[in-house]
Amino acid sequence: MYLTNSDIYNLDKIKRLNIINSITGIKPANLIGTISEIQGPNVTIISSVVHIGSNPPYLGFILRPGGEVSRHTYLNIKENGFYTINHVHQSFMKKAHYTSAKFPYGVSEFEKCGLAEEYLGDFKAPFVKESPVKIGMEFREEIPIKLNDTRMIIGEVMHVFIPDEIMNEEGYLDLGKAGSAGISGLNSYYGFQKRGEFPYARVENVEEELG
Amino acid sequence: MYLTNSDIYNLDKIKRLNIINSITGIKPANLIGTISEIQGPNVTIISSVVHIGSNPPYLGFILRPGGEVSRHTYLNIKENGFYTINHVHQSFMKKAHYTSAKFPYGVSEFEKCGLAEEYLGDFKAPFVKESPVKIGMEFREEIPIKLNDTRMIIGEVMHVFIPDEIMNEEGYLDLGKAGSAGISGLNSYYGFQKRGEFPYARVENVEEELG
Repeated sequence: MYLTNSDIYNLDKIKRLNIINSITGIKPANLIGTISEIQGPNVTIISSVVHIGSNPPYLGFILRPGGEVSRHTYLNIKENGFYTINHVHQSFMKKAHYTSAKFPYGVSEFEKCGLAEEYLGDFKAPFVKESPVKIGMEFREEIPIKLNDTRMIIGEVMHVFIPDEIMNEEGYLDLGKAGSAGISGLNSYYGFQKRGEFPYARVENVEEELG
Repeated sequence: MYLTNSDIYNLDKIKRLNIINSITGIKPANLIGTISEIQGPNVTIISSVVHIGSNPPYLGFILRPGGEVSRHTYLNIKENGFYTINHVHQSFMKKAHYTSAKFPYGVSEFEKCGLAEEYLGDFKAPFVKESPVKIGMEFREEIPIKLNDTRMIIGEVMHVFIPDEIMNEEGYLDLGKAGSAGISGLNSYYGFQKRGEFPYARVENVEEELG
């Protein structure tokens, strides 16, 4: 199928959403955990977490603060300054999916979707107990994307929990072993297997490696 | 394994790179195709492509313009205004990986890594012929991330090529059928299978669906 820009504008809204949310390829399935003093805890599925840098360790994600679901996460992060990023494991991807429902502010998706809040040490935001990989984040910067009134939220990694059996000596995580899920589009969930591993690419080795 | 922020700072550099590049979960493997009038074509693997919006159809990715590899892509996009995003298929993930080597500006990674340039219609940037899903992009905005001197490059989807057999009636792509690859960390490549599909999440259905 071939679509031009104007074909895309002319698509039925749902079909456009599905296609444009699918074409970037596989996306990581993560749950963002937040809490507000008055409104309580909140957890929502996000497929836009992206690596920003390793030193300092920064991760970002895209949020549309005007959207009903994103707004609670946004307000909580701005109020509290801390949040968590938790891998969705394939065993609870259905529960994770339903955190995207538009629950009113003050209703806990942890409770409604059957996920367990976990507080670790004195970290101020809830982790998802069932998640294989859990990351405690401190908010650093909010970058407005004026083109469509979305924002990138950037935080610094303050805590990381990784099961020993999924990490090798060099620090690589085996996401197949972890059982982490991926997302395509808005509602398809995937599992993965490692298919290849290649060394750091050096110009002087390319010909030999690919020859 | 549990790491605090200061543990992360104190890690060996390579191990820190590996861990922080792995913890976000699976990342999409895409090739960015660009061209400069004088320096010729360029193609480089990027794992940070992210959905920004569907209407207008915006996609973004993170670039460190100071880096040797990213700089050529950046200069070409700024010169030309058009670029392509192409899924890495599992059949050529090794070739795709080696586009990350620091070839001098003016050397074509298409040629060095054995990937075929493809020019479609009068679109001004090279697609990757072998890719199952190809997207022609027009540059829209460059957003500086001052925290670590990286940038988010946002473009609008101008053309999309999707094999008919991987898309369903509703516009969802089956990435398993597509054979698209994912990346964990810097050098591990993954294939995927669909494990679940759930309807749009409505508050009134959550209890019944998860009960």
